Amino acid sequence: MKKHNFSAGPCILPEEVLQKASEAVINFNNDDLSLLEISHRSKPFVDVMEHARALTLELLGLENKGYKVLFLQGGASTQFLMAAYNLLNKKAAYLNTGTWADKAIKEAKLFGELIEVASSKDKNFTYIPKGYKVPTDADYFHCTSNNTIFGTQIKEFPELDIPMVCDMSSDIFSRQLDFSKFDLIYAGAQKNMGPAGTTVIIIKEDILGKVERTIPSMLSYKTHISKDSMFNTPAVFPVYVSMLTLQWLKDLGGIPFIEKVNQKKADLLYNEIDRNPLFQGVVATEDRSIMNATFTLTNETLKDTFDSLWKEARINGLNGHRSVGGYRASMYNALPLYSVQALVDTMRELERKA
Amino acid sequence: MKKHNFSAGPCILPEEVLQKASEAVINFNNDDLSLLEISHRSKPFVDVMEHARALTLELLGLENKGYKVLFLQGGASTQFLMAAYNLLNKKAAYLNTGTWADKAIKEAKLFGELIEVASSKDKNFTYIPKGYKVPTDADYFHCTSNNTIFGTQIKEFPELDIPMVCDMSSDIFSRQLDFSKFDLIYAGAQKNMGPAGTTVIIIKEDILGKVERTIPSMLSYKTHISKDSMFNTPAVFPVYVSMLTLQWLKDLGGIPFIEKVNQKKADLLYNEIDRNPLFQGVVATEDRSIMNATFTLTNETLKDTFDSLWKEARINGLNGHRSVGGYRASMYNALPLYSVQALVDTMRELERKA
Repeated sequence: MKKHNFSAGPCILPEEVLQKASEAVINFNNDDLSLLEISHRSKPFVDVMEHARALTLELLGLENKGYKVLFLQGGASTQFLMAAYNLLNKKAAYLNTGTWADKAIKEAKLFGELIEVASSKDKNFTYIPKGYKVPTDADYFHCTSNNTIFGTQIKEFPELDIPMVCDMSSDIFSRQLDFSKFDLIYAGAQKNMGPAGTTVIIIKEDILGKVERTIPSMLSYKTHISKDSMFNTPAVFPVYVSMLTLQWLKDLGGIPFIEKVNQKKADLLYNEIDRNPLFQGVVATEDRSIMNATFTLTNETLKDTFDSLWKEARINGLNGHRSVGGYRASMYNALPLYSVQALVDTMRELERKA
Repeated sequence: MKKHNFSAGPCILPEEVLQKASEAVINFNNDDLSLLEISHRSKPFVDVMEHARALTLELLGLENKGYKVLFLQGGASTQFLMAAYNLLNKKAAYLNTGTWADKAIKEAKLFGELIEVASSKDKNFTYIPKGYKVPTDADYFHCTSNNTIFGTQIKEFPELDIPMVCDMSSDIFSRQLDFSKFDLIYAGAQKNMGPAGTTVIIIKEDILGKVERTIPSMLSYKTHISKDSMFNTPAVFPVYVSMLTLQWLKDLGGIPFIEKVNQKKADLLYNEIDRNPLFQGVVATEDRSIMNATFTLTNETLKDTFDSLWKEARINGLNGHRSVGGYRASMYNALPLYSVQALVDTMRELERKA
């Protein structure tokens, strides 16, 4: 029997996706060759790449709106750099909501003036700043939609007249948004989309070509757009598994369907955190993420007992990040409701025992 | 039955490696979780990464010689950029032996003066230039050990007093060399090492820290060395399959063993190309690659017949690169001798039929 996998990322993927991925490693496309040993320019793999791109636009409701989709290597960490390399002419505005936003800011500083419009660093990133002003003369505004480490999530995005760039690594495809408000969205695959090793980029083509510096080929969005993500050999297997996961999501009913499931899972867990006197949430209630719930014990002496209980219940990946401590339950798209129920049962069992 | 896979890359991998990789996608380390859904910071995966690094140094005979091994995303194409970003202060010397060397030169030009010490572009890269002089005041010399597209291979490397950088993407782990002559070796995994999506970098640490520019975190070798290739989430699955392939090679007897097998395969095919009046080799005999053999028909009207013959024989991936034409047989480490025999049999059959 599989474990209840609350890992923050790389994280749980749908069982049927894993089954198909495993088969493709032996025999892909009934062609008596492994997916790992065929040319990335062969028709079967070009079809995979095209289908992955089309599914991305379809699921986000961005078809025929001037967006291009790329699947690149290097993770969101490379996007921190590429976004600035391609878009930052003079100054850019960043919202600092946690470790990843902070890293994005650090990289962008190499390319121009950096305006930190607001930061929640004063309270260890346990809330999302609101009411900040974005300079109208900035080249773009950058934000992080969900903060995996701290467990906060932006519920309302600003209305802007400058391009909006968003790192959606840990909540893309999990909730309905007006994605057309964003000009550049990027996300490492290893949360709601696939295995580590590929990063999806959704970019409005008309924001490019406005910086004067020469951009190295591999860091230029234009290079990759002109070659349909095949300027160099893509991460074939991670792209394939991402395509399977996007297809799984579409077949289920897309983002509107999965958002309801995700809300149900989050409600179940947060209700227990609020009801059970042995637990407390870490972040401001209105900013709670429906993907990553952070919580602590009200009585630290119960730590060993609770840790034994959830491990016995075959729960995996519940320890909080070292910069926050306590616990973190990551409830990505593929996590079943019954896994959250198993965690809630364990919390109730601790209450009975304590 | 599996096909005879002569694909130029991504390419054939050992069957036992594919079997283990397929199983790990369902259940890794007997832990009832997929390799794709566990944290890259969990002990089982950290062990994989450490083992892959140790095997790399052991197979190349580079233990305890001041080298560090990295497994990064982005392919050799990103290394074209990183090598220059990290090492090019004023000028660098490059040997131009084909498409990939040409691309490496293009990226390096953004960072300083570029001396092309020699080029075989005049004859469509069908030979390896010799007798060139490398400026002693260059920051480093860069070469490409094997030219996948054209089928040439450097047999003797220059003796230099400046750092030597080598793109070994298509022949690393295939032949014995004094690897300690090189200060930086890089190779995309998708030939002799694993699936697309990871790149091995072997670097002598003391060549770093000599340029004045600020290097973005993701492009800095120092960043990745200080974090043991875990500055950001690595390409978990490609690294795992690479580790399995390196272990397979070690168990067989390492590079000394596989070099003999590779030489036997290359001799079998090149002897037939030279003997059979219907075929001719494309490149200078002394520069022939033992990995990628390029050849053409002496009589183009036999093309359809030959193409039918090899396809009937379940041979895959024999078409030459569009910039060369004709045929290319890639004979990487995992290709069995009987696959080369199957190709030779087909060439003889054409001779009988013609």
